Amino acid sequence: MAANTFGNVFRLTTFGESHGEAIGGVIDGCPAGLAIDLDFIQSQLDRRKPGQSHIVTQRKESDTVKFLSGIFEGKTTGASIGFVIYNENQKSKDYEHLKENYRPSHADYTYDTKYGFRDYRGGGRSSARETASRVVGGAVASLLLKNKNISVNAYVSQVGTIQLDKNHNELDLTQVDANVVRCPDERVASQMIEYIEKVKKNGDTVGGLVSCVIKNVPAGLGEPVFDKLHAQLAYAMMGINAVKGFEYGSGFNGARVLGSQHNDEFYNEKGTISTKTNFSGGIQGGISNGQDIYFNVAFKPVATIMQLQNSVNNKGEEVEVGGRGRHDPCVLPRAVPIVEAMANLVIADNLLLARNSKI
Amino acid sequence: MAANTFGNVFRLTTFGESHGEAIGGVIDGCPAGLAIDLDFIQSQLDRRKPGQSHIVTQRKESDTVKFLSGIFEGKTTGASIGFVIYNENQKSKDYEHLKENYRPSHADYTYDTKYGFRDYRGGGRSSARETASRVVGGAVASLLLKNKNISVNAYVSQVGTIQLDKNHNELDLTQVDANVVRCPDERVASQMIEYIEKVKKNGDTVGGLVSCVIKNVPAGLGEPVFDKLHAQLAYAMMGINAVKGFEYGSGFNGARVLGSQHNDEFYNEKGTISTKTNFSGGIQGGISNGQDIYFNVAFKPVATIMQLQNSVNNKGEEVEVGGRGRHDPCVLPRAVPIVEAMANLVIADNLLLARNSKI
Amino acid sequence: MAANTFGNVFRLTTFGESHGEAIGGVIDGCPAGLAIDLDFIQSQLDRRKPGQSHIVTQRKESDTVKFLSGIFEGKTTGASIGFVIYNENQKSKDYEHLKENYRPSHADYTYDTKYGFRDYRGGGRSSARETASRVVGGAVASLLLKNKNISVNAYVSQVGTIQLDKNHNELDLTQVDANVVRCPDERVASQMIEYIEKVKKNGDTVGGLVSCVIKNVPAGLGEPVFDKLHAQLAYAMMGINAVKGFEYGSGFNGARVLGSQHNDEFYNEKGTISTKTNFSGGIQGGISNGQDIYFNVAFKPVATIMQLQNSVNNKGEEVEVGGRGRHDPCVLPRAVPIVEAMANLVIADNLLLARNSKI
Amino acid sequence: MAANTFGNVFRLTTFGESHGEAIGGVIDGCPAGLAIDLDFIQSQLDRRKPGQSHIVTQRKESDTVKFLSGIFEGKTTGASIGFVIYNENQKSKDYEHLKENYRPSHADYTYDTKYGFRDYRGGGRSSARETASRVVGGAVASLLLKNKNISVNAYVSQVGTIQLDKNHNELDLTQVDANVVRCPDERVASQMIEYIEKVKKNGDTVGGLVSCVIKNVPAGLGEPVFDKLHAQLAYAMMGINAVKGFEYGSGFNGARVLGSQHNDEFYNEKGTISTKTNFSGGIQGGISNGQDIYFNVAFKPVATIMQLQNSVNNKGEEVEVGGRGRHDPCVLPRAVPIVEAMANLVIADNLLLARNSKI
Repeated sequence: MAANTFGNVFRLTTFGESHGEAIGGVIDGCPAGLAIDLDFIQSQLDRRKPGQSHIVTQRKESDTVKFLSGIFEGKTTGASIGFVIYNENQKSKDYEHLKENYRPSHADYTYDTKYGFRDYRGGGRSSARETASRVVGGAVASLLLKNKNISVNAYVSQVGTIQLDKNHNELDLTQVDANVVRCPDERVASQMIEYIEKVKKNGDTVGGLVSCVIKNVPAGLGEPVFDKLHAQLAYAMMGINAVKGFEYGSGFNGARVLGSQHNDEFYNEKGTISTKTNFSGGIQGGISNGQDIYFNVAFKPVATIMQLQNSVNNKGEEVEVGGRGRHDPCVLPRAVPIVEAMANLVIADNLLLARNSKI
Repeated sequence: MAANTFGNVFRLTTFGESHGEAIGGVIDGCPAGLAIDLDFIQSQLDRRKPGQSHIVTQRKESDTVKFLSGIFEGKTTGASIGFVIYNENQKSKDYEHLKENYRPSHADYTYDTKYGFRDYRGGGRSSARETASRVVGGAVASLLLKNKNISVNAYVSQVGTIQLDKNHNELDLTQVDANVVRCPDERVASQMIEYIEKVKKNGDTVGGLVSCVIKNVPAGLGEPVFDKLHAQLAYAMMGINAVKGFEYGSGFNGARVLGSQHNDEFYNEKGTISTKTNFSGGIQGGISNGQDIYFNVAFKPVATIMQLQNSVNNKGEEVEVGGRGRHDPCVLPRAVPIVEAMANLVIADNLLLARNSKI
Repeated sequence: MAANTFGNVFRLTTFGESHGEAIGGVIDGCPAGLAIDLDFIQSQLDRRKPGQSHIVTQRKESDTVKFLSGIFEGKTTGASIGFVIYNENQKSKDYEHLKENYRPSHADYTYDTKYGFRDYRGGGRSSARETASRVVGGAVASLLLKNKNISVNAYVSQVGTIQLDKNHNELDLTQVDANVVRCPDERVASQMIEYIEKVKKNGDTVGGLVSCVIKNVPAGLGEPVFDKLHAQLAYAMMGINAVKGFEYGSGFNGARVLGSQHNDEFYNEKGTISTKTNFSGGIQGGISNGQDIYFNVAFKPVATIMQLQNSVNNKGEEVEVGGRGRHDPCVLPRAVPIVEAMANLVIADNLLLARNSKI
Repeated sequence: MAANTFGNVFRLTTFGESHGEAIGGVIDGCPAGLAIDLDFIQSQLDRRKPGQSHIVTQRKESDTVKFLSGIFEGKTTGASIGFVIYNENQKSKDYEHLKENYRPSHADYTYDTKYGFRDYRGGGRSSARETASRVVGGAVASLLLKNKNISVNAYVSQVGTIQLDKNHNELDLTQVDANVVRCPDERVASQMIEYIEKVKKNGDTVGGLVSCVIKNVPAGLGEPVFDKLHAQLAYAMMGINAVKGFEYGSGFNGARVLGSQHNDEFYNEKGTISTKTNFSGGIQGGISNGQDIYFNVAFKPVATIMQLQNSVNNKGEEVEVGGRGRHDPCVLPRAVPIVEAMANLVIADNLLLARNSKI
């Protein structure tokens, strides 16, 4: 019912189109007394913003967030937190020619069918620009998690067929932002960058994987039936533009092995109940068990390519459409802070939900 | 907030533990005037019930649903529909020895941590028995979809490493129930059955994939931001016990290819706007486009194995635990109606949600 | 969206019609570890049940609740709590003659218009029988409140024009159940009973007021904007059958006085901030301030009277309708536990909600 | 759970404090294709804004709404509609002296208790300034209702002890705005204005009643159990600042009469089923019956008076507090558009909800 609201206790409602006046949102349910670090929040937006490197879209927008309410003397008051990010660099003319055309694998046709018409400028509400609001919400959520020592780290683990063959335990996650593709392995990162440059030169696009690990989540978060913690994470990730798949823990590989190989034996690690392996991905029966939560998110290649494609217009007539303007050859590097934002929202929400598990 | 409720307009709330008095639920938001075919609903439960073949658990329960309200003279009245399924074949003694032990990759430890104690009999609320209530809800939802000619068909496409290498267009979906493993390719089905028999003999378990295709969904269902139709499907499927991954359309393979290969060109098919390929999986920008919706769901092997495993108890002491009783060596055949049920719930809900897209 | 669900964290979903198989419900969100006193819960149902005295309906039903899940070894487990109350004394024949007729001030016409048809037996879902499920939910909620020393007491303060002219501070609330009309002033109670007997003899019905006081609510419950604590109470009470009005604190009289008369001055009562007067009714800015919360609920006379009335049927033809069967001349005595139940649900829900007010 | 969100399908989320940067909100669930009349929306805000006459607060704010999203080429797109109203005339200094003091019958103490601290400037989130966002949301809702010929009209029917003794059928509702007190009876209006002037001169405040009538609501709106149409209206009205009571139809008077006097007989009015009387207030069994819906809302006197009062501060010390700045002696005239806004939101929401009553 709440198409533009995410979360149960810690709730984010977003609004805004790519080429409208502004995008923004409302954070509701954030407990009072949380210190708000505005620089940190802006830094997360800067990781998502266009124009940050040569392998992403060259659009220039500062994506500056302005908070309008809910914060007083540097702390949350318990009231709803409104914020806006004004749109700056809209070139609506770039889209005039697409007014009646349906771009392949875009949302043009489905929006027209669902709503009767659409804001065709830059994809309107279907633009990934909307995710900037999620980054704001996620950054506030992460401030809540930092109080509990919980960390969320995402990184690019695959671009096209170039795969990182190390898991999160073998990586130095402080190095994610050390290169423009946000893969914390310098050698693989170089290959990815080179590949994206080549794809871009051909006017093409490419997809990939973002991996994410969440550490220090206390045992007991998540709900046992429909709202399993991983079901909430899947919902959160699949709601990001261009995502086609989600797996956590052993994931799709888990479907191939035997129970005797897959089960995670418990042991007593100096007074703490821990597991020897972690195929469970830190979640058992939908509830966190204190181990690392980790998952992969698959992104398809961006639909806008700089090549001519056959399509139809809203009268059903055959047309040729071609990308113009400034687009991402690969969305993965900019997707990293978005994946983190959604994960932060989920964990913060469940941290608050869990306060009511026991009398 | 609603750990035991699924859906927005068409809502299912479930209750019940494996070894309690009964399981059941309440369907709320089903429009008035829907003819209820009780035999059809029971037939879906029979597809999920234990003891239906030699490759699933040998527990015997009739799983008979009894409706208590909301239906009058064979039709829904618009009131909430209460139903119960009484538990018959509980052998609580089978679980007495597990009272204090944490079975590997089960929900014992996480429940104890979250709630302070747990109903240890048969897994309590974490038992897959809960999904019987979902099958009831999904069957009612499917009656709503049948009125619109929408069909939902799931089947087993992988067991362990045995994979079906045909896609849903190459299969005769009327043959899903022609064999006990519910794979509509007789040759591959035989291999799967043989493999499950072997796994069972070893006291082990094995996972696999369920694939699902939804046909004749009108264009325009789904919400564009957080509630993308595929995000709702992912959430629904990941909430089923033992699920580790979800992908739709091109899925994880879509992460490997180029935009020029992946985009689905539109064309005019005798007056209907259609796509030449369907890597989008019938959903674009989160909204259905009228093409087939298809997805895969990855299940891990069942955690209960008939082998001794190391673990700890609730005092942190090292213990050995071993499965007793009657368990599934492979949950996939019984998961087919559950996947269908959850898909039916999602599509029915969105069919009703979409009534408010336009003025 | 959730026509049959009440509450945010502590949620009650109900189902069932007057003359169906059973009524019942699901309580979701009750924290684990709450000791369940089944006798207490049944005793609350007994206060609502028909046939309990000569001034209410003479239908005989035992209204025995049976819990199906969510309770283990006498305590809530954190899982959803399903319960049923089987219908026993249905005489559907009493209603056959009303199948096509629209009884004045009943829900017959509106149900037919909304849903296309209706379960006409005993009012179906519109029957006050549904409130028995609320009493169960409210009784569980009150067990949560008792842990916090919070008490909820309702009583009949007006029947027709016979008014109790004492406020809750002047009454002995332990005497509410000392007489059949549930007015804790013996003199006024006698007048009320006599009046109801007279009304009943005439085949007529009469309304009245239920007053309620909630003590020991900690300061800080309630939400400041739409979900003001009194707005939630109003919603809860107005959702009870036959209720026409709600006021709290100074209520409608508060509209007549000056601010200088109405404001409640704060003072320091031995270290506790208290107010000298309590026109605020224990709630300021939507949030409890620790003082007594008190309110009045106005009930209209029951619509079913034993006199002939003019009306129309579902073809628009003029008909005469007359009450048959066993009905309440005055619903107030049986409404007392219902008002308490709804108040218990609201306060329990807000007690849990308030756990997330601060970091 | 959604303290700052109102509605089920048509949802309004608000944010903003009296003396912050801006207030505003997000409207979600408004169907696509609704023509937006910006002048009409602004005109509703102008009816609520401060400084509009000599009997309300003399603060000057233009209260200009700016829409940021969800509208394209003059029509709603189906996307969430973000809007802001910048605060202009904040004099935070007026409140510095109240930083630590608890004003009688204000939300100062309860906010401090609930949240640990508060934005003390102008009441922060508890300020009635928040209701400007509701007026925006309600005005958009009313555009939806106008398409269906539904009208919502509120007016002041009582100020202190000065009562309008005509019901809505005896009044010319086009004359509500003909005078500054918004009572559509010129004679009574004069008395009210004179009384407010006197109260103001004394530095005091006064409450009163707003009455509201909703015409042409089709039969079938509202939900039968918890979400009865009048329960939703009560919740909506009680959530307005300073409201103490709600009654609809016969209201509190209905508690005094007999069923034989109160029942509304049906008759066939030229093919339409109508009722001879309308004590039901247009709602039966929680569902609209096509007759006029009417109700009264009781407002207490504004808490801020220009007289010295005894109170305590946040250390529990006794203090004297006195109002400064520019405040309303009587909030009723400005409450009229707020009551209408909330009623518009409820009816629009139920109009959309009702689309799913039948298959």
